[in-house]
Amino acid sequence: MSSIRQHISVPFTYDVHFTEHLFSERNELLRKTIAPSSSRKPANVLPVVDKGLLTHHPGLPERIAAYAEAHEDVIWLVADPVEVPGGEAAKNDPAFVDHLHEVISETGLDRHSYVLVVGGGAVLDLAGYAAATAHRGIRLIRAPTTTLSQNDSGVGVKNGVNAFGTKNFLGTFAPPYAVLSDFAFLDTLSDRDWRSGIAEAIKVALIKDEAFFAFLTDHADALAPPRRDREAMEQLVYRCAQLHLDHIATSGDPFEMGMSRPLDFGHWSAHKLEQLTDYTLRHGEAVAIGIALDCTYSHLAGLLSHAEWGQILEVMEAMGFRLYVPEMDAHLSQPDHPRCLFQGLEAFREHLGGELTIMLLEAIGRGVEVHDVDRSRYRQAVYLLRERSDMPEYA
Amino acid sequence: MSSIRQHISVPFTYDVHFTEHLFSERNELLRKTIAPSSSRKPANVLPVVDKGLLTHHPGLPERIAAYAEAHEDVIWLVADPVEVPGGEAAKNDPAFVDHLHEVISETGLDRHSYVLVVGGGAVLDLAGYAAATAHRGIRLIRAPTTTLSQNDSGVGVKNGVNAFGTKNFLGTFAPPYAVLSDFAFLDTLSDRDWRSGIAEAIKVALIKDEAFFAFLTDHADALAPPRRDREAMEQLVYRCAQLHLDHIATSGDPFEMGMSRPLDFGHWSAHKLEQLTDYTLRHGEAVAIGIALDCTYSHLAGLLSHAEWGQILEVMEAMGFRLYVPEMDAHLSQPDHPRCLFQGLEAFREHLGGELTIMLLEAIGRGVEVHDVDRSRYRQAVYLLRERSDMPEYA
Repeated sequence: MSSIRQHISVPFTYDVHFTEHLFSERNELLRKTIAPSSSRKPANVLPVVDKGLLTHHPGLPERIAAYAEAHEDVIWLVADPVEVPGGEAAKNDPAFVDHLHEVISETGLDRHSYVLVVGGGAVLDLAGYAAATAHRGIRLIRAPTTTLSQNDSGVGVKNGVNAFGTKNFLGTFAPPYAVLSDFAFLDTLSDRDWRSGIAEAIKVALIKDEAFFAFLTDHADALAPPRRDREAMEQLVYRCAQLHLDHIATSGDPFEMGMSRPLDFGHWSAHKLEQLTDYTLRHGEAVAIGIALDCTYSHLAGLLSHAEWGQILEVMEAMGFRLYVPEMDAHLSQPDHPRCLFQGLEAFREHLGGELTIMLLEAIGRGVEVHDVDRSRYRQAVYLLRERSDMPEYA
Repeated sequence: MSSIRQHISVPFTYDVHFTEHLFSERNELLRKTIAPSSSRKPANVLPVVDKGLLTHHPGLPERIAAYAEAHEDVIWLVADPVEVPGGEAAKNDPAFVDHLHEVISETGLDRHSYVLVVGGGAVLDLAGYAAATAHRGIRLIRAPTTTLSQNDSGVGVKNGVNAFGTKNFLGTFAPPYAVLSDFAFLDTLSDRDWRSGIAEAIKVALIKDEAFFAFLTDHADALAPPRRDREAMEQLVYRCAQLHLDHIATSGDPFEMGMSRPLDFGHWSAHKLEQLTDYTLRHGEAVAIGIALDCTYSHLAGLLSHAEWGQILEVMEAMGFRLYVPEMDAHLSQPDHPRCLFQGLEAFREHLGGELTIMLLEAIGRGVEVHDVDRSRYRQAVYLLRERSDMPEYA
């Protein structure tokens, strides 16, 4: 009997909106996102809130409830907001996903109901995984509240939690139903969290958009703490989100079935450094170091000019990023040591699968992929960054 | 700032092959499935085997190992075959998914590695869920071994396990990498399992393909035990798989984001009856009852002619299906009782989400969707089936 070749194409469409004060009763964005799409009025909505937000926004759960009440013809909260601790560490504890599944089951959410998650990237990842696996996918509305989640992970198609000591070991590809980014939340971020998101913007500018990198260079002082110019940050977030979305839509491989993942520039060491520092480094802080490392390697490999290499490091330093931590070279000469930075190369290859593919830089705005790296050159790059960090102005 | 509309289209392609003696060393199908696609030679493969197969095929794990050894240039088994109990009950125990995740982690499988699962629908569902959620999706090669999995779930795009008392509460949409159906496994099925798969063929014939239903009518005796004509069964499996695949590819909604799910004809009561009988009814046996019930309802509602209704029930009876079980009317007049059959209507609506959508029949080969049902008419349909089962020839 002849074989049957099955070809399917699955379309996904979602809007990424930018707003301020999403839960102000007069802000109709959330209402309008849900109203036309719901087969029932009001629609069932389960809110999930990043506990880290409550320090500066203690009334947030009540504001969400008041919003739903003011729009009760469209929104029905099936439960009080579920609070989940923010930060990568929450992704290590399987109890949170289990709990969300339990609440989804108890409240009778279905595939036409909504999980509305408000918070930083880790909480979005965790709630997104729970929503994607319940009933094979409940609609997910993300309200990212950090620079990093608004310009990067929060607009993308992935979710995940950590397991067996591996970051995002469990996860799926699942486009959100909508993304509602509220810039007002950015004002209450700590300096570290404010800065963290800038790293992903630097990353995508370096591999894809020279003009965007010029913008970042020109606005480095305005963007960095203490100035924290919100208007400049809004432009950064918007352009970065746009480049990220454009990559997903046009790469030809939105669910990453191939071996190439250009948006992970700087990430092989970043992931490992997050783990080596017990997640005391923020993801963005680790990415900044990873970018510095891969740019330095690119320069040592003769790909990137000395002038551009210097410019990149200076911009990152002007933003306030540290570009070296001692965990980088603690076990650098012991390739089999579990805390050796190079273990990150194998973990990176393994997560993506297939052949190792690392993005390097041949110019600002132009990435290039390689499949082999020279570890002694990487060691040299680490030492260069260490030396630079020892200079008086970085002490 | 203006909103960004993201549109992505995710393409999936996979082949469904039919063969005999998949693990005979001279059969090159598995080798050829893996060889061209692997970025590494040999490719890492984790075999998962349905323990239920071992009664009749005690040497199966060794045969798989021998096959891999004979094709060691292409296939590297990362571990001995993991054995998982067959049948729906295994999907109730989260330990199996956890164990598979653990093995996947320990053996270092990546997104370009393979989980090769050999077994019936429940084991395919369970291993499929584990594979789909590890590293956001490891390649899954399904080798379905039952009539039901070869012609229905095994060729589709879903996986799942049960949780919180709900069938397939956890799961994802994840097209397989390939499907390799080995007809030789069908010979060792029990009569009940052999027959079970016929129910899904009847279902898809009734809603989509009058000519296929004529084939089933003509071959009812040949197909049913004790004759179990393998050639007729192969034709049944092939045509049913083809119709199933065609529906997924052309429905416009392969990941079921809308409210319509025609392939679930007869399934609202079937799912509930599986639960009410503690899964002692096979899925196919429950589907046969569900089809009989919805056909009877369709007839009582004036949609389906008396002659066609009678023909359908007779064909199913000729196949050896029971069309009534006492669990159907044990609590039929107590709509709030958890063991009332009608609880299946709400569970069905909830799983799919949105408005209730039930497929009925207006003629053999022609389904029609409705959004409202008359429960007193359904009660009448149950009583009709009960009476019919009380007649001497069914006692």
